[in-house]
Amino acid sequence: MPINRQQLLDNRPKGEASLDNFKLISVQTPSLADGQVLVRHHFLSIDPYMRGRMNDGKSYATPQPLGQVMQGGTAGEVVESRHPEYARGDKVVGSGGWQEYSVVDASQAGALTKVSNAEIPLSYYLGAVGMPGVTAWYGLTQIIAPKPGETLAISAASGAVGSAFGVLAKEHGCRVVGIAGGPTKCEYAMNELGYDLCVDYKRYPDATSMSAALKQACPEGIDGYFESVGGYILDAVLLRTNTFARVALCGLIAGYDGPPLPLANPGLILTNRLKVQGFIVSDHMELWPRALAELSALAASGKLRPRESIVHGIEAAPAALLGLLNGRNLGKQLVQLV
Amino acid sequence: MPINRQQLLDNRPKGEASLDNFKLISVQTPSLADGQVLVRHHFLSIDPYMRGRMNDGKSYATPQPLGQVMQGGTAGEVVESRHPEYARGDKVVGSGGWQEYSVVDASQAGALTKVSNAEIPLSYYLGAVGMPGVTAWYGLTQIIAPKPGETLAISAASGAVGSAFGVLAKEHGCRVVGIAGGPTKCEYAMNELGYDLCVDYKRYPDATSMSAALKQACPEGIDGYFESVGGYILDAVLLRTNTFARVALCGLIAGYDGPPLPLANPGLILTNRLKVQGFIVSDHMELWPRALAELSALAASGKLRPRESIVHGIEAAPAALLGLLNGRNLGKQLVQLV
Repeated sequence: MPINRQQLLDNRPKGEASLDNFKLISVQTPSLADGQVLVRHHFLSIDPYMRGRMNDGKSYATPQPLGQVMQGGTAGEVVESRHPEYARGDKVVGSGGWQEYSVVDASQAGALTKVSNAEIPLSYYLGAVGMPGVTAWYGLTQIIAPKPGETLAISAASGAVGSAFGVLAKEHGCRVVGIAGGPTKCEYAMNELGYDLCVDYKRYPDATSMSAALKQACPEGIDGYFESVGGYILDAVLLRTNTFARVALCGLIAGYDGPPLPLANPGLILTNRLKVQGFIVSDHMELWPRALAELSALAASGKLRPRESIVHGIEAAPAALLGLLNGRNLGKQLVQLV
Repeated sequence: MPINRQQLLDNRPKGEASLDNFKLISVQTPSLADGQVLVRHHFLSIDPYMRGRMNDGKSYATPQPLGQVMQGGTAGEVVESRHPEYARGDKVVGSGGWQEYSVVDASQAGALTKVSNAEIPLSYYLGAVGMPGVTAWYGLTQIIAPKPGETLAISAASGAVGSAFGVLAKEHGCRVVGIAGGPTKCEYAMNELGYDLCVDYKRYPDATSMSAALKQACPEGIDGYFESVGGYILDAVLLRTNTFARVALCGLIAGYDGPPLPLANPGLILTNRLKVQGFIVSDHMELWPRALAELSALAASGKLRPRESIVHGIEAAPAALLGLLNGRNLGKQLVQLV
């Protein structure tokens, strides 16, 4: 059996997360028992939610256990099987975590999903046709529920969720304005993801200037907003919401590394009669098949072809997460191992 | 025609509202034109939203115009009529504002409503069977939408909205915990309004102590919350919400007199997957008949019999509003003129 390198959470961050929080070890992969398969990971998924789970205490997910392999989504290939439904060479998506191989009880519901669509790159099952894509779909269709012609906005527009959101919002006939950090991301959002406009938040470092920029970008106000960032960007967006606007809250990455960032003026929720709703896409597994069918069709047709940020080798995983938290990725952040 | 005394908004508050913002004048009531009626006001409604309208600038309602009669709900009696459907002696509810008489174009839709139920005191049409009652009904049934057995909480439990909310929540089979200021209000909420418990916020002057008190009062957490106060009480409640709790936001009285009070930890909306929704009951006129039918039945049967705080004479109206904003009322605040 091959040697398996693993990234463990060694200790919890105090304030900002750092490379010292992780530890790389090598172990022998065990022999397979009946019903198990050995998966070689081609891609590890790197996602913002992982930062929240590195903390102890109450969050929407149980904390990542200390001294254990960092949990996360993976896409790979079966290299050995003692399960009748899996054969060597099958492409599979699962939750193998930050390691080169995983041994999976393949009968366990949801542990592995075989994927086989030649039109869709394997890595997409961790992004546009995976959890981030379904996240965009859920927030858009189930919370914002837009009418054609409405103006929608989203922070982190060029990320994994944002790339799917832009394409889906255009499919719904909306005007869609992105927010992203820096001209490269903004040009990418407008030129390749279908955004009508993209506001570079690095040019607007406070709620007042950001709000003024959004007023220009959304002259008819904002009817729906998808939030993964929080902090002053959320404050600025709320100032530009129309009556009865809907805010889908799926992350607050700006506050992950320190104390909670307050919301400056909750009175706007009242005066503008907003609906602000938090959600976690794993609460709604019953809707995934429908969402994935739509996303797969868009990806296969070429309408949904977002770029990815890829680093190589298991040793690069911690830095990839820290980079993501600081906005250094363009599109879905992945670690490629094969 | 009689002399009519009126309270005008003379100037806008800078910070806290004060008696100096108002001006009492006397005018002659004009002669009636065809289609008009003269209403003598028996009761003026005093409501928290009036403070928001005293400010200039964007709010959910247009600002109260300067130099004009303070707008607001009224209940009274027709004393002269040039409209075929109204006769001297008819009891009517309308929006006559802070004055002793009003001349009403009775054909205008919604300008006047005749009321005639011997089981229901006239003043109730400004409270339990009026706008505050419908506000409680809307937040409860349309936003919180509780299941029997759930725990609900409400701030300002002994006020006009709170008195209806407690009774309605018990009708829905919920456990209902009030928050109010001082032992008198809390005992009233528990002994007369049906609250299972009432937490005296004056004993818990910050979010930490308030949250601990709510943990005791709501050992199974909070599934629905009706908010009219804001500030640290809202922060404390959010800390005790269960997953998928709903927050109906109908007022933020704690912040009306000064700069906006922030929400300390919007991350809880995400981690607990909350829905926080602002609403103004006048946006939903299509539901009023249904709400009023339920509230009337409860009032007529004696189940909904809240107390009122009544001051006498038009000169007392400004102080009544300031008292309401400082929590000095018990139940619906009214000015009685006749």
